[in-house]
Amino acid sequence: MKTYLSGWESLCASSRLLRFIDINLRGIGQVMFQDNPLSGALFFAAIVWGSVAAGVPQVAICGAIAVVVATLTARVLRVDETALRAGLYGFNGVLVGLALATFIAPGPLLWTYVALGAAVSVVTMSATANALQTLGVPTLTFPFVLVTWLLLLATYGFAGLSGDALPAAGVVVPFESVAALRPSAGDFLQAALFSISQVFLKASVIAALLFLAGLAVNSVAAAVAAVGGAIIAVITAHVFGAESDLITGGLLGFSPVLTAVALGTVFHPPGVRVAAYAALGTIFTVIAQAAFNVALTPLAIPALTGPFVLVTWIFLLPRQSFERVADDTK
Amino acid sequence: MKTYLSGWESLCASSRLLRFIDINLRGIGQVMFQDNPLSGALFFAAIVWGSVAAGVPQVAICGAIAVVVATLTARVLRVDETALRAGLYGFNGVLVGLALATFIAPGPLLWTYVALGAAVSVVTMSATANALQTLGVPTLTFPFVLVTWLLLLATYGFAGLSGDALPAAGVVVPFESVAALRPSAGDFLQAALFSISQVFLKASVIAALLFLAGLAVNSVAAAVAAVGGAIIAVITAHVFGAESDLITGGLLGFSPVLTAVALGTVFHPPGVRVAAYAALGTIFTVIAQAAFNVALTPLAIPALTGPFVLVTWIFLLPRQSFERVADDTK
Amino acid sequence: MKTYLSGWESLCASSRLLRFIDINLRGIGQVMFQDNPLSGALFFAAIVWGSVAAGVPQVAICGAIAVVVATLTARVLRVDETALRAGLYGFNGVLVGLALATFIAPGPLLWTYVALGAAVSVVTMSATANALQTLGVPTLTFPFVLVTWLLLLATYGFAGLSGDALPAAGVVVPFESVAALRPSAGDFLQAALFSISQVFLKASVIAALLFLAGLAVNSVAAAVAAVGGAIIAVITAHVFGAESDLITGGLLGFSPVLTAVALGTVFHPPGVRVAAYAALGTIFTVIAQAAFNVALTPLAIPALTGPFVLVTWIFLLPRQSFERVADDTK
Repeated sequence: MKTYLSGWESLCASSRLLRFIDINLRGIGQVMFQDNPLSGALFFAAIVWGSVAAGVPQVAICGAIAVVVATLTARVLRVDETALRAGLYGFNGVLVGLALATFIAPGPLLWTYVALGAAVSVVTMSATANALQTLGVPTLTFPFVLVTWLLLLATYGFAGLSGDALPAAGVVVPFESVAALRPSAGDFLQAALFSISQVFLKASVIAALLFLAGLAVNSVAAAVAAVGGAIIAVITAHVFGAESDLITGGLLGFSPVLTAVALGTVFHPPGVRVAAYAALGTIFTVIAQAAFNVALTPLAIPALTGPFVLVTWIFLLPRQSFERVADDTK
Repeated sequence: MKTYLSGWESLCASSRLLRFIDINLRGIGQVMFQDNPLSGALFFAAIVWGSVAAGVPQVAICGAIAVVVATLTARVLRVDETALRAGLYGFNGVLVGLALATFIAPGPLLWTYVALGAAVSVVTMSATANALQTLGVPTLTFPFVLVTWLLLLATYGFAGLSGDALPAAGVVVPFESVAALRPSAGDFLQAALFSISQVFLKASVIAALLFLAGLAVNSVAAAVAAVGGAIIAVITAHVFGAESDLITGGLLGFSPVLTAVALGTVFHPPGVRVAAYAALGTIFTVIAQAAFNVALTPLAIPALTGPFVLVTWIFLLPRQSFERVADDTK
Repeated sequence: MKTYLSGWESLCASSRLLRFIDINLRGIGQVMFQDNPLSGALFFAAIVWGSVAAGVPQVAICGAIAVVVATLTARVLRVDETALRAGLYGFNGVLVGLALATFIAPGPLLWTYVALGAAVSVVTMSATANALQTLGVPTLTFPFVLVTWLLLLATYGFAGLSGDALPAAGVVVPFESVAALRPSAGDFLQAALFSISQVFLKASVIAALLFLAGLAVNSVAAAVAAVGGAIIAVITAHVFGAESDLITGGLLGFSPVLTAVALGTVFHPPGVRVAAYAALGTIFTVIAQAAFNVALTPLAIPALTGPFVLVTWIFLLPRQSFERVADDTK
C-alpha cells in the first residue's frame, strides 16, 4: 500500500492536475479524518453508489462540484498550503454539497447555492480554525453544520429554492412507542451499517462497506472505532426506546460514529481508559442527537453532524489535562 | 466554628471515607459558591426536607447519587486535585441529579440517566474551565445547564423516559394579566424565600431558611446578597407585571439570587459601587429569566440557571478593566 | 471640513458639555463605524426625520436618551477613555433605544426599559470586547443584538410592556411567491435606499440620503460600500425569490449594507480581491438574514443586525492569515 501511495505522491509532485485531484480526494477523506487519497477515492465511490442506487445522481455531482469549488476558493484565498494539501479545506465543502443536494429539489439555483455554500465553507473553516487556535481543539465539521443550517433555513424564505426533502415544522411532543419492539438481527445490522453510511447522508449497505474499506486502508483503528461506535449507538438508542425508523435508518448513529472515531483514535497512547472515555462520549452523542432532533423540530431543519461537533468538543477540551496526567505517569 | 472545621479537616486527612464525604458536601456547597462542608450539609438537609415535604424523596436520592457519581468520575479522570477537593467537580452533578429527578418520572432508566448525566457533567466542567481559562471567568453552572438541557430535550425522542413534569410546548404569545394585583406581604415573603430555595429546585420556606443558614455559616455577605437578590428580583418582576404564580413560586427569582451572590461577593473591595453593579446585574437577570422562559416555550424545557450564567458572565467579563481601575486609584 | 472639525475639537477640549455632546454624536456615528461627530449629527438628523415622518417621534427621543444613558454609564464604570471618546460605548445604546421604541408601545415602563437596556449595553460591550480580545475581531453590534433580543423576548412575559410592533409567532413554512415579479426601477431604488436607512430601523428615502451624507463626510469609501452593498443585497434577494415586501422595505438589505461597509473598508490595501471578498460576504449576509428571519419565526422577535454580526465575524476572523499573506507579497 505504502509503495503505491509514494508512487502516487511522485506523480502528484510532477503534475498540477494530479496534485489538484489528490487534494480533492484527501478533502473527501478528511470527512472521516483520513488524510489519504485512496480513502477519499473509496469514500467517493461510496457516495456515487449510494446516490445512483437511491435515484439521486445529482447528489454525488453536487458533492464533487462542492469539493472542487472549496479547493479553488482555498487557493484563491491563499490559505496555509500544508493544511490545504492535507484536504482540511475540502471536507466541509463536500458535505455542504451532499447535504444541499439531498434536501433541496434540483434546479439552476441549487447549483448556485452549492457553489456559494462551498466557497463560504472555506472562509468559515479558516475563521473557526483561528477562533479555536488557543483552545487546542480541531474545527471538526462545525463549518459544514453552520453554513448548511443557514442555507437550509433560508430556503423557507426563498421561492426559488424548494426544500422538498426537509422535515416539516412540528410541535415538540413526547414520542410514545406503540410497543417495545425487539429488533431482529437484520434490523440491528442494517442500523449499524446505515449509521456509518449516513455520515455522508447515504442509506446503503454497500456504501457503508466502501466507507469502512476507505477507513481501513488508512487506519484499521479508525475502522474498528467506526464499527464500535455504530454498535454502541444502536444499542443505546434501543435501550432508551428511540423511534425504530430513526434507528434502522442510521439517523441516530452517524454522529456517534464520528465521535467514536474522533475520540477513539486521537488520544495517545490508546488503551482501555481511552476506549471507555470514547464510549461515554459516543453514548452521550446519541442523547445529543435525539436532543438536537427535538430542538430543531420547530425550525424544520435536520441536526446534521451538530451533535458530533458539540460532544466531541466537550470531550476533547479537557485533553490538555489528561495528557498532562499521561506525562506524569511516565 | 473554625475550631470544628479544622477538627473535621484533621479527621478527613486520616480517613479516605471522610475525605470522600467532605468532597461531596463541598460539591453541594459550591452550588452557591461555598467551599465548606457544613454549608453542604445544611444545603443537603434542605434538599431532603424539600423533597420529602413535596412527596418526591427520589429527587434527594438522585441528587445524592449524582454528586457521588460526579466525584468518582472526577477521580477516575484524574482532574486537578485542588479543584476536586474544593467541590468544584460536584456542584454541576448534584444539580443534574436534582433536575432530572424533578422533571422525569421515576423508573430504571431515570437512574441510568442521572448517572450518565453526572459523569458527563464532570467532562463538561473540565471542558468549560479550559475553554474559559484565558477569559478569567468561572464556569458557573454552565455544565449543568448544557448537559441537563440535552438530557431533557432527548426525553421527547425516547419512549423509555417520560418528562412528566416538563412544561408542554407552546406558542409564544403576550402575557396579559387579568388585573394589576397588589401582592400581599405574605405573598411577597414567600416569593423571596422560594426564590432562594428554587436554586435547588425546591419550593419550601424551611428549605429556604436552611439554605440561608448554610450560606451564613461560611459567609454572612453571601447570605445578605442572597436575600437582597431575592427582594430585588421579586420587586422587579412585580414592576414589569410578570405572572403572579411565577413570582410567588420563586421561578423568576432563583437565577437573580445566584447573580446577586456571584456579583455581590466576588469583587474586591466591596462597597456601594459594587452593590449598585450587582443590583443592575440582578435586575437584568430577571429580564433574562423571562426572556429564556419565552425562548424555550416552543422547546418545552425549563430555563434552569441559564439566565444566571449568561448575565453573570456578561457582568464578570469586564472585571479585568474594573480591577485595573481599582489598582489605579490606590 | 478638517478645519471645522479641528475647531470643534478645540471647543470640546475646553468645555465638558461640548465634549459630552461630541462623545454622544460619535456614538451615533459608530453605528456605521464613523468616528466623526458630523457623521453622528447627520445620522441623528436622519433618525429624527424618519421618526417624525413615520409619526413615531418617541423613537428618536428614546434613541437620544439611550445614547446619553450609555455614555453616562460608561463614565461611571470608568471604561477606557480613548474608546469612550471614540464613541465605542454609545452605538449599541442608541440602537437599543431605537429598537425598543420601534417595537414596544409607549408608556412609563418603556422609558425604564430603554434606560436599563442602554446601561446593560455598556457592560455587554465591555464584556464582548474583553472576550474577543485574543481573536482580533471587533464587537460589531453584538451587544445591541443580545441585549435587545432578551428585552424583547421578556416583553411576552410582562403584562406591563406590550410589544405591539413585534412579529406574531408563526410556524416555519416555505414561502411561495404568487408569480415571479419583475421589480420596477422605482421599487429597486427604494429597496436599495431603505436597505441603508433600515440600519437605523427607518424606512425613508430622505433619511437614507442623510445617512449616506453622514458616511461621505467622513469616508467616501464607506458611502460607496454602503451603496454597493445595498445594490448587491437587493439583486441577491430578487435572484433567490425573496418576498417582495421584505425587499422593497429594505428588511433583507440592512445587515448586508453593514457587512459591505465593514468588510469593504477594513482590509488594507483595498482592491479587487478585497471587493470580491466583501461581495461574497454581502451575498451570504442576505442568506443569513433570510435564515435568521425563519429561525426566529417561532420566537416572534426580529433578527436585528444578528446576521451582519455573524457573517462579518466569520469573514474577519481569517484576517490574520490574509494580512500575513499581504505582508509576504511586499
